Amino acid sequence: MHIRVINPNTTAGMTATIGEAATRIASPGTRISATQPAHGPVSIESHFDEAISAVGVLEEVLAGERDDADAYVIACFGDPGLLAARELTRAPVIGIAEAAFHIATLISTRFSVVTTLGRTGIIAEHLLDQYGFRHHCRRVRAAEIPVLDLEENGDAALERLIAECRRARDEDGVGAIVLGCGGMADLTDEIGEAVGLPVVEGVTAAVKLAEALVGLGLGTSKHGDLAYPRPKPFIGNFERFSNLQPGR
Amino acid sequence: MHIRVINPNTTAGMTATIGEAATRIASPGTRISATQPAHGPVSIESHFDEAISAVGVLEEVLAGERDDADAYVIACFGDPGLLAARELTRAPVIGIAEAAFHIATLISTRFSVVTTLGRTGIIAEHLLDQYGFRHHCRRVRAAEIPVLDLEENGDAALERLIAECRRARDEDGVGAIVLGCGGMADLTDEIGEAVGLPVVEGVTAAVKLAEALVGLGLGTSKHGDLAYPRPKPFIGNFERFSNLQPGR
Amino acid sequence: MHIRVINPNTTAGMTATIGEAATRIASPGTRISATQPAHGPVSIESHFDEAISAVGVLEEVLAGERDDADAYVIACFGDPGLLAARELTRAPVIGIAEAAFHIATLISTRFSVVTTLGRTGIIAEHLLDQYGFRHHCRRVRAAEIPVLDLEENGDAALERLIAECRRARDEDGVGAIVLGCGGMADLTDEIGEAVGLPVVEGVTAAVKLAEALVGLGLGTSKHGDLAYPRPKPFIGNFERFSNLQPGR
Amino acid sequence: MHIRVINPNTTAGMTATIGEAATRIASPGTRISATQPAHGPVSIESHFDEAISAVGVLEEVLAGERDDADAYVIACFGDPGLLAARELTRAPVIGIAEAAFHIATLISTRFSVVTTLGRTGIIAEHLLDQYGFRHHCRRVRAAEIPVLDLEENGDAALERLIAECRRARDEDGVGAIVLGCGGMADLTDEIGEAVGLPVVEGVTAAVKLAEALVGLGLGTSKHGDLAYPRPKPFIGNFERFSNLQPGR
Amino acid sequence: MHIRVINPNTTAGMTATIGEAATRIASPGTRISATQPAHGPVSIESHFDEAISAVGVLEEVLAGERDDADAYVIACFGDPGLLAARELTRAPVIGIAEAAFHIATLISTRFSVVTTLGRTGIIAEHLLDQYGFRHHCRRVRAAEIPVLDLEENGDAALERLIAECRRARDEDGVGAIVLGCGGMADLTDEIGEAVGLPVVEGVTAAVKLAEALVGLGLGTSKHGDLAYPRPKPFIGNFERFSNLQPGR
Amino acid sequence: MHIRVINPNTTAGMTATIGEAATRIASPGTRISATQPAHGPVSIESHFDEAISAVGVLEEVLAGERDDADAYVIACFGDPGLLAARELTRAPVIGIAEAAFHIATLISTRFSVVTTLGRTGIIAEHLLDQYGFRHHCRRVRAAEIPVLDLEENGDAALERLIAECRRARDEDGVGAIVLGCGGMADLTDEIGEAVGLPVVEGVTAAVKLAEALVGLGLGTSKHGDLAYPRPKPFIGNFERFSNLQPGR
Repeated sequence: MHIRVINPNTTAGMTATIGEAATRIASPGTRISATQPAHGPVSIESHFDEAISAVGVLEEVLAGERDDADAYVIACFGDPGLLAARELTRAPVIGIAEAAFHIATLISTRFSVVTTLGRTGIIAEHLLDQYGFRHHCRRVRAAEIPVLDLEENGDAALERLIAECRRARDEDGVGAIVLGCGGMADLTDEIGEAVGLPVVEGVTAAVKLAEALVGLGLGTSKHGDLAYPRPKPFIGNFERFSNLQPGR
Repeated sequence: MHIRVINPNTTAGMTATIGEAATRIASPGTRISATQPAHGPVSIESHFDEAISAVGVLEEVLAGERDDADAYVIACFGDPGLLAARELTRAPVIGIAEAAFHIATLISTRFSVVTTLGRTGIIAEHLLDQYGFRHHCRRVRAAEIPVLDLEENGDAALERLIAECRRARDEDGVGAIVLGCGGMADLTDEIGEAVGLPVVEGVTAAVKLAEALVGLGLGTSKHGDLAYPRPKPFIGNFERFSNLQPGR
Repeated sequence: MHIRVINPNTTAGMTATIGEAATRIASPGTRISATQPAHGPVSIESHFDEAISAVGVLEEVLAGERDDADAYVIACFGDPGLLAARELTRAPVIGIAEAAFHIATLISTRFSVVTTLGRTGIIAEHLLDQYGFRHHCRRVRAAEIPVLDLEENGDAALERLIAECRRARDEDGVGAIVLGCGGMADLTDEIGEAVGLPVVEGVTAAVKLAEALVGLGLGTSKHGDLAYPRPKPFIGNFERFSNLQPGR
Repeated sequence: MHIRVINPNTTAGMTATIGEAATRIASPGTRISATQPAHGPVSIESHFDEAISAVGVLEEVLAGERDDADAYVIACFGDPGLLAARELTRAPVIGIAEAAFHIATLISTRFSVVTTLGRTGIIAEHLLDQYGFRHHCRRVRAAEIPVLDLEENGDAALERLIAECRRARDEDGVGAIVLGCGGMADLTDEIGEAVGLPVVEGVTAAVKLAEALVGLGLGTSKHGDLAYPRPKPFIGNFERFSNLQPGR
Repeated sequence: MHIRVINPNTTAGMTATIGEAATRIASPGTRISATQPAHGPVSIESHFDEAISAVGVLEEVLAGERDDADAYVIACFGDPGLLAARELTRAPVIGIAEAAFHIATLISTRFSVVTTLGRTGIIAEHLLDQYGFRHHCRRVRAAEIPVLDLEENGDAALERLIAECRRARDEDGVGAIVLGCGGMADLTDEIGEAVGLPVVEGVTAAVKLAEALVGLGLGTSKHGDLAYPRPKPFIGNFERFSNLQPGR
Repeated sequence: MHIRVINPNTTAGMTATIGEAATRIASPGTRISATQPAHGPVSIESHFDEAISAVGVLEEVLAGERDDADAYVIACFGDPGLLAARELTRAPVIGIAEAAFHIATLISTRFSVVTTLGRTGIIAEHLLDQYGFRHHCRRVRAAEIPVLDLEENGDAALERLIAECRRARDEDGVGAIVLGCGGMADLTDEIGEAVGLPVVEGVTAAVKLAEALVGLGLGTSKHGDLAYPRPKPFIGNFERFSNLQPGR
């Protein structure tokens, strides 16, 4: 089984972090290919960054189709381009926010999210609403760490994250904590030990959900609103998407 | 990995059906043990049946704890005893309704449920509400088949199920169908082929989610409201639950 | 009119407390019979306790049917076995959480719940959701008192309850407080006086709602999903439920 | 106990119908006084009618306060002036829509409403939302009968109501039907017999809920947003409300 | 274009304040006529005040119809009589709470409301629910200022408002603040400058929405539940509403 | 006032249609500039088309900033890139789906949407949820017309739209209809006349809301989660977005 793990930002260090975490958690028969777009922002910390990064995610899915990927993971906590990506493939596509929320509800009745910057909290809230988990999440918290600090300034970032997770544990009445950034994929264990309650991280969660779906023989429904996009002309820089016929 | 799949009713034939489906879908390293309570109803078609069956489910979880099960599946579409079962163990516990709903939302934007008897539809609706999927489910449909007809009168039951699933496909605007009974675990493929859109079945979905959770090293949170029950006296027929110390 | 008030736990002292509160509030023509299961936990403080206690509740309803009860009250704040109990009878069945929530919304726009242990708060939240009162309840608070302390350690418990109720009054912006445990049935007046806003207690509320329903000539609908359960075999310890024909 | 049943419209025949239904259902110790405003519309079939009728309702509550009423029923299905009325008194005030919805949820998991004119359906929907019962109501149906036809053209109206209630029973998957107009208070039995499932009527439901609240010693909370209105000048035709000091 | 701005209370000073704010914001071709009822409360601080004031609002709409108004603004934050007023006219009718909420969601993802008295907070909450903005509003705050203090005690009131708005800015995680009283119409700029984030005031917002609707050629739908009320007798003080035929 | 109306697809004919509709509805002092991206799909009929088109929308907003636009309209019914666009400017940004929904709720209690292809219905549903209008919309209907048929096959498309709108009027119990595609901007009057109830079209609605916001002196909040994106490197084709400093 080949799972293509797409880091929607263009920071190679973070792709490596994510790829390693994915590889570590993958089952024996699973091959992980971690990729990142050739075009896009070095980190995703706003709706703008997210909108631009979605293009790269979609390119990577199309590349994955040529490469016979069996499943895709979108490894940014805003799940950029998720529904569009699903249209491009019969394979399952899993966002890491989505994955972490689903998994968290299976081991606790209520959870809190700890994310990087406060301004991205609204993205998590909108996803919670869309996925149905508004009431399972007690609170979206931010440690106020820029995403790349997770790479460049790891120790200080870890400390702040642990402190915020402990506040969630002590104040929110939750049974689990969801880490709100793909760049935290290598910190799960340390945070879990420091905080003492289950910590759900999205990259690893998504890999396992992708394996589960492939194992079930289930992929994105092509009946109805996730069917392949109607082929049509695109112009300018996006001409390469003209008359796209994924899956055919 | 040892997953204990608990059929909450006491019909051995259905336990076999469920166990076989679970075994077929399990990953190489996974051992499935399919069990059923020693005490309870032969089928679950009402809140009453469900309440009684929950006791058997809990006994089977306690037995599984002595047997070092790594995860549990509750294989009745009402998820009887789910939160109580979670209290008894650090291992993950997955209900098949829950599992099917989660999986269906990962491959479609909207799904319908096709269950056995109309009177059990409300059970599915309450679960959809509790799990957060009210708006992902377009409609809960019933084929009006008594549960044991799935065992005893398979061909006619299959025909009715396929007919109802086709109505769901044609009228509900959905991308996937969720089968609403553990006893349908062996019919998924046939229904899927006849209906032509993804059909999600709970037993198989739950096994894969259980594998995913064990693979992630995550189990039921013991912090907060799913902690082990406080040990205390029980009297009468339930004296055996006195001063229960699961996990210790 | 005969109202059977079922204490779902097996502590006789609490049954007495509940029975006395029910009797005190009952109308002249109403006879209260307070009962408790022969089998089950001495207190209900978890989903597990609740699941086991539901069996006893259902036995007591079946006994009540033989005894021509006109209505039933389930006197534990988790309303264990409520929908299953309704299936067994044409008579009304009222849970005390349900009763208290309904009554509280008739005298205030918003209320808070003060319950025993924090871990049971989720049970109240799930019920608020199912009954439709999520937004009428500002907060579910816990005084962190084990249930039996209400019996055995009454003064200290009362003090903690009053303190928590006062915090609800001062911080939550509510017009009423709901007491979240059947064992508080004898404390309503004292708490109400100490706190100075309406305090709604479930046992008394449920008795009056049961009287109201009987007075209206209304009982549990036997049309649709609360119809009598289909008779069927039960095995093992539950064989006595085989081919049950309540109401016939 | 003295319950003042206020017919918000000014049709004496309907006040009599309502008063008789209330009296028939009242408990031995309960005295019913049925009143109607001196000023207002002969029937209530729009938001406009309702807004004007609210003034009459409030006058009748103030009159009831001088008359030591123990509880109030607002006998129009839009519950006109309900929260304002509650501000004027420590006694309980119950709207008949509210009452019927509450009672219906105690005997069924889902109900439908059958009201008079389609244009008033939105009023019922807004109340269902505000009270929390949106999801307990499957459908708001209208028999398209002007309210006064219930008085003047009784047989034809009854026939249409029964036909609509039967459609609700057969198509909506409900366990109970709520009658959506105070003027139907004398038709409950006939409809119930013709339809064969529980029919909940608001006037009778409200009388019993009022008795229940008085029996519990509970009245409208004066703590918070239902406290007595701040006394102040009113001018013009409403000068009589100046410096109102209800309850003092 | 003629917009009739109705101050639902009877305090001329507040009508002047509101009228000036409306005039200042109106487009060149727009004529504002600010009116107030001849009958009613001097301020609106309770459900009771609001119910009485609705009559005056409706009279002013009827007067506006005779005066060929093109649109109406109801300038009290509870939007008293809004749906009833819509029934009386083909012209658009805009409430100021409604207007402010709509506008706030167009410039921010989340907002808080700062109103006068805590007891009126519930009115705002009910409107948020009815209009669909429950989740866009983080918090309804009160500065605990009686409405007329805005007129009579302006400096102190302004200071308290600014303080409360700053708390909203610092604690609520919002991008905008909604002022919750028509009497604040002249304070928007000062508050906005002191607080440093967008402050949305309802009177000005409603005038611009009314202009927008008139510009679009859109008015209140007369198809369905906002159609003109059915003409009928009214008695007593309200006889003048008998056989009303607005729009004809 | 300069409003930049952005057609997110790259079909010049549709840009013209939209621009003309916008110009016709604009107030005297308003200048409309209708633009379209240099890069992207010729029509938007899927999540994929929408994700790609968002880039073009954002480019057009950035271009508008250099051109001192006072407000922006995103003229595709999926509101592609809306929140990202808001981050890029202090000016108001209005999506046409959003605009149409807001306006429809001001003139009716319930509306239906009539859109082009069934597969895009889910996009409208997600927006209704996010904006808070889920319960104001009775139904999202599709006339099953490809978007460009509105340009190329106008008469047949118009006929199908009118037929679907009439079904909405007759079956859905609504007071208004929302047209679900920017390409319908020139059809509003014809449809409105044929259908006989208010028809709300998003381009025109958005222009008037944009004028309203500019008139109020209100723009996108730069406090909190819609603040300008943090400047940062972008690579590849998107390098031009590096260290973007909009508004500075």
